[in-house]
Amino acid sequence: MALGDNWYTEIYPQDGAAFSLKLTDKIHEEQTPFQTIAIFETEGFGTLMTIDGLVMLTDRDNFIYHEMMAHTGLFTHANPQDVVIIGGGDCGTLREVLKHASVRHACQVDIDERVTRLAEQYFPELCDSNDDKRATLMFDDGIRYMADAKPGSVDIVIVDSTDPVGPAEGLFTEKFYRNCHRALRDGGIIVQQSESPLFHLKLIRAMRDAMQAAGFVDLATVNFPQCSYPSGWWSATMAGKNIKLNNFRNDAARKRPFATRYYSDGVHGAALNLPPFMITALG
Amino acid sequence: MALGDNWYTEIYPQDGAAFSLKLTDKIHEEQTPFQTIAIFETEGFGTLMTIDGLVMLTDRDNFIYHEMMAHTGLFTHANPQDVVIIGGGDCGTLREVLKHASVRHACQVDIDERVTRLAEQYFPELCDSNDDKRATLMFDDGIRYMADAKPGSVDIVIVDSTDPVGPAEGLFTEKFYRNCHRALRDGGIIVQQSESPLFHLKLIRAMRDAMQAAGFVDLATVNFPQCSYPSGWWSATMAGKNIKLNNFRNDAARKRPFATRYYSDGVHGAALNLPPFMITALG
Repeated sequence: MALGDNWYTEIYPQDGAAFSLKLTDKIHEEQTPFQTIAIFETEGFGTLMTIDGLVMLTDRDNFIYHEMMAHTGLFTHANPQDVVIIGGGDCGTLREVLKHASVRHACQVDIDERVTRLAEQYFPELCDSNDDKRATLMFDDGIRYMADAKPGSVDIVIVDSTDPVGPAEGLFTEKFYRNCHRALRDGGIIVQQSESPLFHLKLIRAMRDAMQAAGFVDLATVNFPQCSYPSGWWSATMAGKNIKLNNFRNDAARKRPFATRYYSDGVHGAALNLPPFMITALG
Repeated sequence: MALGDNWYTEIYPQDGAAFSLKLTDKIHEEQTPFQTIAIFETEGFGTLMTIDGLVMLTDRDNFIYHEMMAHTGLFTHANPQDVVIIGGGDCGTLREVLKHASVRHACQVDIDERVTRLAEQYFPELCDSNDDKRATLMFDDGIRYMADAKPGSVDIVIVDSTDPVGPAEGLFTEKFYRNCHRALRDGGIIVQQSESPLFHLKLIRAMRDAMQAAGFVDLATVNFPQCSYPSGWWSATMAGKNIKLNNFRNDAARKRPFATRYYSDGVHGAALNLPPFMITALG
């Protein structure tokens, strides 16, 4: 069945697949110095933001991604105080991070201020902690930020980036991970979105190899559904500086004093259980 | 971006979304007395079978569904010997069921023989246990089959059906579940595909309510990714006749003497952990 004109379609050319959302309105489109950002209203997924034609987030399913990106790392760290978010301009990860009372400073470094300004306008609920006095919003190059970061000054680095092409490419390299490793305190953790277990296993493997080459000893990949991303199945990979990642603060996660819709202690433990085909492919 | 003619698209009208696969060939299409079955070759997902325009299975991702439909129930039951599969004409679930040495008889009851004949031709690996002497392939109405089944004669009923519209509608009713309950021995389990946690929560709730009304006391819904089904996220719901479903034969699952690509003891336990929004919605 052919789709009419009023559909947004993202094609996954390497996998011969595509995902489409029916639109009710195109609200905004602009070319920034870095990328093209567009905002749509959809029939079934609320508001949609795309960057360079790729889905960044929708109202309907972004809670899964943001909760998993933030809480898996923060409930694994013993006492996360200083958090850096690289990318994450829609502020959804920042909001989840700031739910943790232990956090005294969260710095979000997105290269493109327009992502944040549009999120404030069109996804206001994701930005409702932007005025938290523990939050700093910087609009700068995250790669340079981590290269310049003071050694041993950070507990958690969350890399909430676009795919590893274009501006985000340098976020998937051993050099970047070395800088993150140096910036982290002992017991620190980097958490990075690591694409689809079904479509991008080679990329996940390469990312893990680069993290290990950069000095991270223990790694853990978690998996979760994400309807509007390629294959509907997504992952994040954690790497620890002298910390084991298969344990987490289960009690604290169970007694979390804030609401979540996808994340829970049970879901966290579950997400660490990779299927045999992934274990085989990741070595 | 518009898709060209050489794409198969399934629209999910209630959710304003669609999933597409790029085709390299249309191999077969026929109208049976029950439905229209088509077979395609795709660029990235191998062979594709559709029924009435809906994806039934692809080479690339059917392993997840079939392994979860079979092994979660069989490793929960203490000693599964007699298994009935309602639907499942592609024989992929049957193949997984027959991997269990305890099974002495597995009867697959699909209303449409043509599904099986086409699976034998185009998905031969799914049919490689059809000649197992423990297997019976019947082509009949599964609703009537369960209504006529001898009380206390079955250990596991697996309902591997199409969506609850058309011929499969009667498989989602209290009446059908009452017949399954009567046919099951004590300790028996029904396992049914239960659609998408993101798109079809009300249906899952209604199914669970109907199962309870039919006499099943303990229920458990498992969730797993399924790229080519609506939302890329799927579920199966188990109901037990005097058996607890949140425990399973973990040791036997870990030491399983056959290969799986998605299922494992860890994945089984993980799949039982539902996210908070599902727990809330399912009551």
